[in-house]
Amino acid sequence: MVAVPPRASPRKKMGRPPATDNPRRQIVRAAARLFAEKGYEASSLGELAALTGTSKAGIYHYFATKQQIYDAIILDVLGGLTQEVRRAVATEAAPAARLRAFMLGHARFFQAHYYEFVAMLIGFSGMATPDMKQEANRLRDEHEQLLRTIVQHGLDTGQFSGSSAATTARAVLSMLNWMVRWYRPDGKERAETFAMDYYHLIVQGLLPR
Amino acid sequence: MVAVPPRASPRKKMGRPPATDNPRRQIVRAAARLFAEKGYEASSLGELAALTGTSKAGIYHYFATKQQIYDAIILDVLGGLTQEVRRAVATEAAPAARLRAFMLGHARFFQAHYYEFVAMLIGFSGMATPDMKQEANRLRDEHEQLLRTIVQHGLDTGQFSGSSAATTARAVLSMLNWMVRWYRPDGKERAETFAMDYYHLIVQGLLPR
Repeated sequence: MVAVPPRASPRKKMGRPPATDNPRRQIVRAAARLFAEKGYEASSLGELAALTGTSKAGIYHYFATKQQIYDAIILDVLGGLTQEVRRAVATEAAPAARLRAFMLGHARFFQAHYYEFVAMLIGFSGMATPDMKQEANRLRDEHEQLLRTIVQHGLDTGQFSGSSAATTARAVLSMLNWMVRWYRPDGKERAETFAMDYYHLIVQGLLPR
Repeated sequence: MVAVPPRASPRKKMGRPPATDNPRRQIVRAAARLFAEKGYEASSLGELAALTGTSKAGIYHYFATKQQIYDAIILDVLGGLTQEVRRAVATEAAPAARLRAFMLGHARFFQAHYYEFVAMLIGFSGMATPDMKQEANRLRDEHEQLLRTIVQHGLDTGQFSGSSAATTARAVLSMLNWMVRWYRPDGKERAETFAMDYYHLIVQGLLPR
């Protein structure tokens, strides 16, 4: 996870943290769901406080503005995603197995953090500061670079052929990212099942072998 | 194109149409670009009028509300897309050639209507009425059904194998639709070039043949 230092706020001293184990994390998760379901503009810190069982002052203890909470959602989810996928990929050696681990790890993390991904997609006005934006881009690029490296290794060793690492990484991330538009977390199929189907398509291709 | 009948408006009689050949279409295209660049909420009919060289009354001649213009963008672009792709596919007989025609036709139409696709993606509060929503869903389903039919024909005739029509259609549409998130219409690469690369990946697969 990426730590977002709380910004100094005139109201900070008035706030008391919500009485739970990890209240900052709880606020971020509740905010993601609220933004995902109502939209960013229509969501208020009062509603968020009610959802997390605290007061607006309790929110201000951690975040000076609504925008800062949005930034925390994006950096937390991108930081968590890259970490989870890197760990999953590290357990495999062969390019095809590493590609599969990447796709399944991404889908698993997406399903567990569905509302954060939806909040990230709706995007509205972007990140608050250039520093935040830069950090988000760095994490996104790191994720794509890991995928390209896996595919390139397959190409270099002759285990893959026919498509470039750039095209393949773009295609794989498109399939995984577009899930946010149609996947239903309360449906009966797991996101990993769809990712596995995509993996087979990408690796085998449609033409009979 | 799908005709959206203008809704009765008390201001309608005060409005004069902008003095061009196809002013309704011009309003829809300018609105798509405005919504795509500024967001729906932040866009005003006054700005839109200025962009199209007319007055707010000139806009009201065609559309009673901003929401109605948004609906027209979605129905026009989905109607145009299905029409263009159906026409492209009809020129080919073999499943692989029809799949390629689908992907290239979609990418070509996307590039020519980039801002409409972005406006469709930002989505905000959805369509105004259940009828509009139903028509949009019908067009979207028709587009996906055409793609599934092409792939199923390939599977039935043994020209494709290994992945279902549902998985393949979902993968292809994810790759094409996600372009709206990263493709730059002022860049040097054409959307069709990326679609062609995706086509080769999907058909050949990564494993050497």
